[in-house]
Amino acid sequence: MPDVSPTKWHLAHTTWFFETFVLEKWQKSFRPFRPEYRVLFNSYYQRVGDQYPRPRRGLLTRPSLDEVLEYRTNVDTAVVELLDGRAGDAEVEAVIELGLHHEQQHQELILTDIKHVLSHNPTNPIYASRAGSPATVTTPQSWLAHDGGVCRIGYDGGGFSFDNECPRHRCFIEPFELASRPVTNAEFAAFIDDGGYQRADLWLADGWAMVVAEGWTAPLYWERSDSGWQQFTLAGRSPVHVDEPVCHVSYYEAEAYARWAGARLPTEQEWEVVAAEMPVEGNFVDSCVFHPRPAPSSAVPAQLYGDVWEWTASAYSPYPGFHTFAGALGEYNGKFMCNQFVLRGGSCATPQSHIRPTYRNFFPPAARWQFSGLRLARSRVG
Amino acid sequence: MPDVSPTKWHLAHTTWFFETFVLEKWQKSFRPFRPEYRVLFNSYYQRVGDQYPRPRRGLLTRPSLDEVLEYRTNVDTAVVELLDGRAGDAEVEAVIELGLHHEQQHQELILTDIKHVLSHNPTNPIYASRAGSPATVTTPQSWLAHDGGVCRIGYDGGGFSFDNECPRHRCFIEPFELASRPVTNAEFAAFIDDGGYQRADLWLADGWAMVVAEGWTAPLYWERSDSGWQQFTLAGRSPVHVDEPVCHVSYYEAEAYARWAGARLPTEQEWEVVAAEMPVEGNFVDSCVFHPRPAPSSAVPAQLYGDVWEWTASAYSPYPGFHTFAGALGEYNGKFMCNQFVLRGGSCATPQSHIRPTYRNFFPPAARWQFSGLRLARSRVG
Amino acid sequence: MPDVSPTKWHLAHTTWFFETFVLEKWQKSFRPFRPEYRVLFNSYYQRVGDQYPRPRRGLLTRPSLDEVLEYRTNVDTAVVELLDGRAGDAEVEAVIELGLHHEQQHQELILTDIKHVLSHNPTNPIYASRAGSPATVTTPQSWLAHDGGVCRIGYDGGGFSFDNECPRHRCFIEPFELASRPVTNAEFAAFIDDGGYQRADLWLADGWAMVVAEGWTAPLYWERSDSGWQQFTLAGRSPVHVDEPVCHVSYYEAEAYARWAGARLPTEQEWEVVAAEMPVEGNFVDSCVFHPRPAPSSAVPAQLYGDVWEWTASAYSPYPGFHTFAGALGEYNGKFMCNQFVLRGGSCATPQSHIRPTYRNFFPPAARWQFSGLRLARSRVG
Amino acid sequence: MPDVSPTKWHLAHTTWFFETFVLEKWQKSFRPFRPEYRVLFNSYYQRVGDQYPRPRRGLLTRPSLDEVLEYRTNVDTAVVELLDGRAGDAEVEAVIELGLHHEQQHQELILTDIKHVLSHNPTNPIYASRAGSPATVTTPQSWLAHDGGVCRIGYDGGGFSFDNECPRHRCFIEPFELASRPVTNAEFAAFIDDGGYQRADLWLADGWAMVVAEGWTAPLYWERSDSGWQQFTLAGRSPVHVDEPVCHVSYYEAEAYARWAGARLPTEQEWEVVAAEMPVEGNFVDSCVFHPRPAPSSAVPAQLYGDVWEWTASAYSPYPGFHTFAGALGEYNGKFMCNQFVLRGGSCATPQSHIRPTYRNFFPPAARWQFSGLRLARSRVG
Repeated sequence: MPDVSPTKWHLAHTTWFFETFVLEKWQKSFRPFRPEYRVLFNSYYQRVGDQYPRPRRGLLTRPSLDEVLEYRTNVDTAVVELLDGRAGDAEVEAVIELGLHHEQQHQELILTDIKHVLSHNPTNPIYASRAGSPATVTTPQSWLAHDGGVCRIGYDGGGFSFDNECPRHRCFIEPFELASRPVTNAEFAAFIDDGGYQRADLWLADGWAMVVAEGWTAPLYWERSDSGWQQFTLAGRSPVHVDEPVCHVSYYEAEAYARWAGARLPTEQEWEVVAAEMPVEGNFVDSCVFHPRPAPSSAVPAQLYGDVWEWTASAYSPYPGFHTFAGALGEYNGKFMCNQFVLRGGSCATPQSHIRPTYRNFFPPAARWQFSGLRLARSRVG
Repeated sequence: MPDVSPTKWHLAHTTWFFETFVLEKWQKSFRPFRPEYRVLFNSYYQRVGDQYPRPRRGLLTRPSLDEVLEYRTNVDTAVVELLDGRAGDAEVEAVIELGLHHEQQHQELILTDIKHVLSHNPTNPIYASRAGSPATVTTPQSWLAHDGGVCRIGYDGGGFSFDNECPRHRCFIEPFELASRPVTNAEFAAFIDDGGYQRADLWLADGWAMVVAEGWTAPLYWERSDSGWQQFTLAGRSPVHVDEPVCHVSYYEAEAYARWAGARLPTEQEWEVVAAEMPVEGNFVDSCVFHPRPAPSSAVPAQLYGDVWEWTASAYSPYPGFHTFAGALGEYNGKFMCNQFVLRGGSCATPQSHIRPTYRNFFPPAARWQFSGLRLARSRVG
Repeated sequence: MPDVSPTKWHLAHTTWFFETFVLEKWQKSFRPFRPEYRVLFNSYYQRVGDQYPRPRRGLLTRPSLDEVLEYRTNVDTAVVELLDGRAGDAEVEAVIELGLHHEQQHQELILTDIKHVLSHNPTNPIYASRAGSPATVTTPQSWLAHDGGVCRIGYDGGGFSFDNECPRHRCFIEPFELASRPVTNAEFAAFIDDGGYQRADLWLADGWAMVVAEGWTAPLYWERSDSGWQQFTLAGRSPVHVDEPVCHVSYYEAEAYARWAGARLPTEQEWEVVAAEMPVEGNFVDSCVFHPRPAPSSAVPAQLYGDVWEWTASAYSPYPGFHTFAGALGEYNGKFMCNQFVLRGGSCATPQSHIRPTYRNFFPPAARWQFSGLRLARSRVG
Repeated sequence: MPDVSPTKWHLAHTTWFFETFVLEKWQKSFRPFRPEYRVLFNSYYQRVGDQYPRPRRGLLTRPSLDEVLEYRTNVDTAVVELLDGRAGDAEVEAVIELGLHHEQQHQELILTDIKHVLSHNPTNPIYASRAGSPATVTTPQSWLAHDGGVCRIGYDGGGFSFDNECPRHRCFIEPFELASRPVTNAEFAAFIDDGGYQRADLWLADGWAMVVAEGWTAPLYWERSDSGWQQFTLAGRSPVHVDEPVCHVSYYEAEAYARWAGARLPTEQEWEVVAAEMPVEGNFVDSCVFHPRPAPSSAVPAQLYGDVWEWTASAYSPYPGFHTFAGALGEYNGKFMCNQFVLRGGSCATPQSHIRPTYRNFFPPAARWQFSGLRLARSRVG
C-alpha cells in the first residue's frame, strides 16, 4: 500500500521536520546531520526540495534503526539548546509547537501503518495483547435535535491550532438531528446481510466503482469465518464485537450505509456545533487499548471524541478567509483541499491532547486503513 | 478519451431516455424498438439494467446512423401520441420535460465531444466556419463588493429544475468581492509566462500530480507556435484571442491561477447571490458562434451567463434536505456528489433556455474538454 | 482493443505504402496527395517519420471514406503510370510486388478486425451470411512419422518472399511425429471439460497469468449457452461445430492443450519439412466462407494450408544469415523478432496466392483475434 | 521492483525448498516448522499450494531474521539426519542435490537484489569495499571462426544438471565467428555517444518501446557526471572502468548494440560449441570481487565463464525431447519457456561450482538487474 510507511521512516521524518523548519532556520552555524536525509525524509514539501518517492520508503534498508535514533537524539538535543537560548521567542516556539503536533499525527500513523503491514502477514502477529474481553453493552441509538441557525465554527482560542481550523466564522445550519452514538458492528453487519455490498443503488457512482474494482464485501480487516465475522486487530485476530463502533470503513461505505439506513452523514458544521458543548474525553491512544470500545450506556451524545474518526458529509475545503501558514509550512494542509472528506473527533489511536472540537482530519473517500467509522444525521427540512 | 462519445450514440441515448422512462412506463402494449438498445444506449442507470461499456461506444459501427434516426422518429412519434392522449397528466409531462432538458445537455456534449475528436485529427478539420474576426475589446476587471449575510439559494420557482438545485435553503455568506468578468486569455498567458505550470507551490497536490503526469503546459487545445499561442476551435485552428475568456481549463488550473493572482474562486453560493440579480443573457449556443467572445465593456458584472462555464470553489454536495428524483431517475444527479466541483452559468455551447441562476453543472477537477473557464473572487475577512 | 484498426484506416494505409515507398522515391515531381496522411497512415515505420497513435485510429472521423477512396484511386493511377514507364525495372517492380503482398496481409486483418468489432455489438450483426450448414465429417487424428536429419528450410525460389523467410539454410531435426489434422472443437471442449482453464500445472507461467487476469475460460468468441457452446462468426452467432478446427486460441491455450494431450506443438522446422511436400490448397479467403471447415476424411495430412493458422513451438527469430530489406522497408519484419511466436499455413481469411510453404506469420503469444488454431506433434527421442 | 526480494526471504525460501520437497516427502512423522511458512516462502510452485504475493515480500516484518535462522538450522539438522539414514538412496540424494543448486541460484539473487535496493538509497551505501583499483588492460577484440555443421549440445554427463539442459541432442550450425571477449564499457559508451539510445532504427520494436517508456539512456546503475560516467557497484559509486565488460544491460540493449556494431548476438548453440572446449574458470563469486574485471590479454577466447552472463540470440525454448522433472519440481524450469532469452556462462556473482558449459540461465528481455553483458557473433553465410 503506497500510503503506508515504515516506522523507521516516521521516526526520521518527524525529526527531519524539526531539523528543517527549526534548526536550519535559526541555529547558528547549522550543518545538517546528514545532507542526504534532506531528500530521504521529506514527505511532500515541494518548497524544501526533492522528496524520496513514497512507494519506495519500504526499500530503505539504510540508515539502520540505530542511525535513525542517533539522528533523533542529535536533533532533539540541538532543538532543546536552541529553545533554551530563545525562551519567549514566539516565532520559534510556534514552529516547535507545530512540530510536536506533527509528531503526534505520525504517532497515530505509526499504529495504523503497523496494523496494515501486520494484517498481510500470515503468521498472525500481535502488536500488543489485550487484557480481558470487552464489556458487552448494547446501547440503543437515539436522535438529538438541534435547531440550527447562524452558528460559529472554527478556532479562535488562545492556544495551538492548525491553519485549516481558521478563521472562526459564521455559517447557517438548517435544523437537524444527530445520532447519539456511532454506528455499531451489529448495525453494519445488518447492512451487509441486506446485500449492502451488492446493491449499486445504495452507492455513490465512484464508491460503487471501488466496490467492483476492489471486491469489497465488508470493512477492511473483516473476514468471514465459520463462526461469524472475524477481524484483524493490533491484538491479533478476534471475533467482531457486535457493540463496538464499526471501524475501517471508507467514506463510500459510510455514505452507502447512511443511505441504506434512511439517514445521511452529518456535515462538519453540524458535528462541531454539537461537539463544542462536550468535554474532550474518550477512548484515546492514552488508554493503550488500540481499538474502539462499545458506547457507554450513560453518556448522550456518546463517543464524539476518541474510539473512531467520524466521516462527515463535508468535502475538505477552505474556510472563508482561510490563509495557509507562511512559507513551506503553508504546504502542511492547504494543498490537500480537493478530493478529500473531513473526519472529526479523533480515534483510539489519537493522543487525547491532540484533539479539539474544531480539529479537522481529512482523507480521500476510499481510505480505510485509519480507525474511521461514522455517526448518522438527518435533516428536519426538505 | 473515455469521457467522449460518438454523436450517433448521443442521438440514440436521448431517445432511449424517452423510450425507457416514458413509453415503457405508460404506453399500452409497449414493445421496445429493438430490445438490445436497452443495454446499448443506457448511460449509467444501474436500476434499468446493464450498460454497454462507455469506452467501447466508439466501436459501435452498428446500428447505422440511418437506423438511429429511424429509432428517433419512431420513439418521437409514439411520445407525441402518448402526450396527446394524456394532456394535463402532470406526472407524464414532468418526465417528458426532464427528457427535453436531458437532451439539451447532450446537445452541448455533442459539440464538446466533436471538438475533442477533431482536435486529434492532423487534417485540421473545421466543424463550422466563423464569419469575421472577433471584436477587440479589452475590458479591465473590477471588483464587485457584496455584504453577504444570511442568503437564500436554490430553486423554488414554478417551472422546471433538476433535483440537485433543491430545496431552496438558507446559507451564511461572509462579505466578499466578485470579479466583474471572467479571466481572459491574456491574463492566463501571463500566468504561463510567469512559470505557472512549473511552480508546484501554486497548485493543489492532486493538481500538481496531473501537471506532471500529463505534461500540461497550457489550457487544452492551446499550442505554442512561432507567432504565439494557437488554439483549436470548432472553426479550425486560429490564434488565441487575448480578450476572450480563457477556456478549456481544469479546476486545478483555475484554482492555481486564482492563487497566483492573489485571489480565489468564488463559492457557488457567492456566485448565485450575485447572478440571481442578473438577466440570463449572453453568448449561448443559440448564437452559433461555438466559442467564447470578449467581455463587452458596458455590462457589469459581465458574462455570468454563457461564454464559459465558471468553476466554483464548491465541491459538488447535496443541499440540506436534498432528495433525489424517485426511482431510477434518482440516479440522474445524486450519485455523482463526490470528487466533482460545481460550475455555473452555461457556455457558448449551452442552449439559453437550459440555464437558470440556480443551475448546477459539475465535473471532476481534471476535466478540460468542456467550455470551462473561471472568474475570481476574494474575501473581505480573515 | 488497441490491435484493431478501422477498415477505412487499412484502406488508406495500404495506399500510403505505395505512395511512400514507390511514388515518393521514383515519381518525378512527386507531391503527396495530402501531406498530413504521411503521419496519419504510417503504421510503424520509424524511419519514415512520426506515426499517428495506433489506439487513436478509431477516432478518425475524417478523412471520410469517400476521401480515402479518392486517395486510393489517385495513388493507384500514379503507380500504374509509373510502372508503365519503367517496365522491367527490377527495383521498382520489387517494391510494388511487396506492396501487393502487404495489401493481402491487410485484407486478412480487415476481416479479423471487423469480426472483433462486431463481436462486441449486442445487436448481433452479420458480416456475410453463410449458405447451408457445414458438413459433419468426423475424421480421426493419426500420426505421421518423420525421420528428421539435416533438412533445408527457408525460401530460395525464383518468385517473391518476405525477408524473414530467407536465407534457405540447413537445420537438424530429431525424429518426430506430426498430427494428421488440426485439433478440433470437440477435442478442445474435452480439455475445457477436464478443467483445462482451472489447472495451473498445464500452463506456461505467463499463460496462467493471462488466464487469471483476463478470466479466460474458452477460446475467444465462445459463449456457453443452455444448449451448449455458441460462437460468434462473421455469419453471426451459431453453435460451435464439433468437427471444425478450434480457432481463436492464443499460443498459451494451444501450448496448454498440447501438454494436456500428452503432446507438444511442432517447431516451424518440423512443420515446414512436412508441408513442403504438399500442394498449397485448402479453405482460403477465396472460398468466401470466412470460417474454418471440418477436415476432409481423405487427405493425409489435412489442412496444413488454409482453415486456421497453426501456432508452432518456435519463437520468432532470425534465420542464420538473415538480412532485412534495405532502408525503411527493413522495419517490415525484423524488428518484431522478439516475444512473438511463428504461425504457419494461412487461414480461411488469407488469400491463397499469399501463402508458401516457407511463409512465416507471427503474433504475440496472447493474441487470439486471428484465425489461429493448432496441430499436435511429438518427439520420438528423449 | 517486484522482481527483487529481501535477503531474509531468500534465506527462508531455500530452506522451504528442503522442507517441502525432502522432509515433507520422506521424513517420518513430518510436522512443518510453522504451517504458515508453507505459503509465505513458496515462490511459484502452484502444485504445492498458494503463494504469498511476490510484490509483498518486502512487507514481511515478521518472522524476524532470528526466527528465519532458527528455521534454517532446524530444517538443515533434519535433512542431515534424514540423509544419514538413507545413504545411497538415489531419489533422496537427487532432490537434496537439486536443493543445493537451487540455493546457489538464490545466493546470486541475494547479491543482485541487495545491489538493486542499495542503489536507490541516497546515502550511497557500500556492501563490500574493494581493495585496490582494477588493472588497466585494454585487450582488443578478435574473431574466432567456427565451421559449424552437425553438433551436439545439452547435458549427458554423470553428475548434476537441470532438466532444461537435457536431453543432449544434435543441431545444425551454419559457419560463424565468435568474438574473443565480451563488449567493454568503452565500446558501449561509443554506442551511447553515437546516439544509440535515440535511434529507433537500431532497436527491436519492443526494445524501443521500453527505451521510450522507461527513459533508458545508459545501462542500469550508470549515471553521467561532470567527470564522465559513474556507476553504482556493491563497493559503492565509482567511475565506469573502460576495460571492464559492460554489465546490467537488457537483451534489448545487447541486441541494439550488436546491430549498431554490424554484428549480432550468438545463438546458445554457437556459444556452447565453443565454450564446451574451454575450462570453467574465471571471475566468479568465489573471488569476492562482486564486479566484472577487464579481459586478460592472454586467453582467447576470454571470459566465456564468469564476469558477466552473456545474452544469447536464443529464445528460451525446450530442447527436442525435453521432459520436466516429475511432480511439483516440474515447475522449476519448464513453465518459463516463453518470452525469455537464454544467458550463458555465469557471472561475478555466480558460484564457480554452479556452472557448466551446458548451463542455461534465462530472463525476460527487459531485465537489467542481473550481471548481464554480451559477446558479439557474426554469420559467415547469408
